[in-house]
Amino acid sequence: MPEVIYFDRGTLFLLDQRALPRKVRYVKIKTHRRAAWAIKDMVVRGAPAIGIAAAYGYYLGYAACRDKGSVKEHMREVREDLLSSRPTAVNLRWALDRMEEELEKLSGREGDTGAGLLKAADRIKESEIEANMKIGEHGARLLRQTFPGKKKVNILTHCNAGALATGGWGTALGVIRTAFREGMLESVYADETRPRLQGARLTCYELFNEGIPFRMICDNMSGFFMRQGGIDAVVVGADRIAKNGDVANKIGTYMVAVLAARHNIPFFVAAPLSTFDFDTPSGDGIEIEYRDDSEVLNIGGKAICPAGTCTKNPAFDVTPSELVAAYITEKGAVRKTDELQ
Amino acid sequence: MPEVIYFDRGTLFLLDQRALPRKVRYVKIKTHRRAAWAIKDMVVRGAPAIGIAAAYGYYLGYAACRDKGSVKEHMREVREDLLSSRPTAVNLRWALDRMEEELEKLSGREGDTGAGLLKAADRIKESEIEANMKIGEHGARLLRQTFPGKKKVNILTHCNAGALATGGWGTALGVIRTAFREGMLESVYADETRPRLQGARLTCYELFNEGIPFRMICDNMSGFFMRQGGIDAVVVGADRIAKNGDVANKIGTYMVAVLAARHNIPFFVAAPLSTFDFDTPSGDGIEIEYRDDSEVLNIGGKAICPAGTCTKNPAFDVTPSELVAAYITEKGAVRKTDELQ
Repeated sequence: MPEVIYFDRGTLFLLDQRALPRKVRYVKIKTHRRAAWAIKDMVVRGAPAIGIAAAYGYYLGYAACRDKGSVKEHMREVREDLLSSRPTAVNLRWALDRMEEELEKLSGREGDTGAGLLKAADRIKESEIEANMKIGEHGARLLRQTFPGKKKVNILTHCNAGALATGGWGTALGVIRTAFREGMLESVYADETRPRLQGARLTCYELFNEGIPFRMICDNMSGFFMRQGGIDAVVVGADRIAKNGDVANKIGTYMVAVLAARHNIPFFVAAPLSTFDFDTPSGDGIEIEYRDDSEVLNIGGKAICPAGTCTKNPAFDVTPSELVAAYITEKGAVRKTDELQ
Repeated sequence: MPEVIYFDRGTLFLLDQRALPRKVRYVKIKTHRRAAWAIKDMVVRGAPAIGIAAAYGYYLGYAACRDKGSVKEHMREVREDLLSSRPTAVNLRWALDRMEEELEKLSGREGDTGAGLLKAADRIKESEIEANMKIGEHGARLLRQTFPGKKKVNILTHCNAGALATGGWGTALGVIRTAFREGMLESVYADETRPRLQGARLTCYELFNEGIPFRMICDNMSGFFMRQGGIDAVVVGADRIAKNGDVANKIGTYMVAVLAARHNIPFFVAAPLSTFDFDTPSGDGIEIEYRDDSEVLNIGGKAICPAGTCTKNPAFDVTPSELVAAYITEKGAVRKTDELQ
């Protein structure tokens, strides 16, 4: 699996997730504005990965500031440019807050502030990947507890919450990877995830590279396979989790959660603590990004509807906490949000 | 709107539904085997339209029988070839049963048996379209009863149950057309309907031609819009309705029905009596067609997953009768299947 995000000699390299699985290529980023564009255009996507890219973008913004007298003003703009790239994933704000604190700390000290900021971005990346590994362990333990008599489980996941979404290993796919290595996984159902096909393109790419048995299904098929008894559990990632446990995640997640509830299939949300937003009381307060209509009206650059067709393109939906069986974080899996607070 | 199915001078003309909305073209059919192929390959689709095409196919089979001594044997093969084209829609069998009865009747009489059979196929087409018009009226009345205080309703539909699926007017789209003409319709949400995109391609084509306000949405979005309060009712067609009221319809229908139930949105099934199969006690007895994997793994001829990706492609699912608020038939709308029997 190629590196998802790395920084080398003044340049941020992002594996171009718009081109996968057909092409493995990198987009080179040398300015914070281009980092903001890459997030907006989904060169990089997935809440934790967006946070990491924004952290490096923040560093690039600092490095470009020639007049160190106006650094505060300049960095306010850098932060705003990056923050406004996508509204729903809270990790973006979280990472920028970390970087801002670091800048504050470094400014009062001797030494190379830029080098310190770059290290801080590296640390954010490393800590997200470490968090993923722990999420994987806690998730695998949770599955073992949930299915004590069952040898191997079939897991449905929606969108991509893998290495590509997080910088490495993955949240939902982290749980799946660990469960697979521990011999607990039978197979994965990967939802296609229209309109951007992150499931078909990215999750399948990761599962295939890892040798994990899987099948890709259309977004309207999970109910059928749940009714057939083929799915034991659902594990998804999250873009933001509100204080009451409501989960914003890729459009379609809510439908899967409702279906899972009907079939008594546990619905698990795997996310690092950086995805929890205790400033937002409930899912009603989470801004849902509407993306360009063309994403829905075209597939592979070709129109699928008659010209003049209207649509709406909400990129996320909110799953109410009552439908979530447990949250899997790097600190452990908890069945109630209360315990997190 | 171009004619969907017509017969002219020994040739069956089917509007090629694989090519819409990009191209309006007809496939010419001169043999029953080619009619069976056209049904299987979805040149024509939709339960009532399949029945009509099969009726004309049966006539073509008869017309090609040179040795009238072996007509019984020959027509058994014709029936088998047509019947095996697609397994789920019961209208196929229903139409072939009608044609077989007609052949039996005509064989004992003076006159041109072939001409009589062709007339019988014409009558099946006409009666299906008449049934659709009545379904439209009954459906509009049901909507008025269901939303007495509401001026205009927003209706979600899945797949295409329009003129293209029925020969003319439509079942679910028939209800929508009539409601629109009677000023009761605000707008339509048309599910995209992967893998074959019948919603995006065909329903949008029909709604656009009719000037009915609509938006196309991805299959994973209806839950979002239901939660937002944007959808007042769901109206879908059916490929087969079992004796207990369970409904086989395009894959994804079940998910919409479960979501509608959660949001207290009435879920209506519009279908002619030819779609009811009282020989099948429940949905468990309905054979679900699995179509070729390539339909899921490719869109517009391009692979969307890494090579080697597995999938399953169930073309239909079964919605249990408990989720159906009412069945809208040409004889009226009924809230309980018992009343139909």
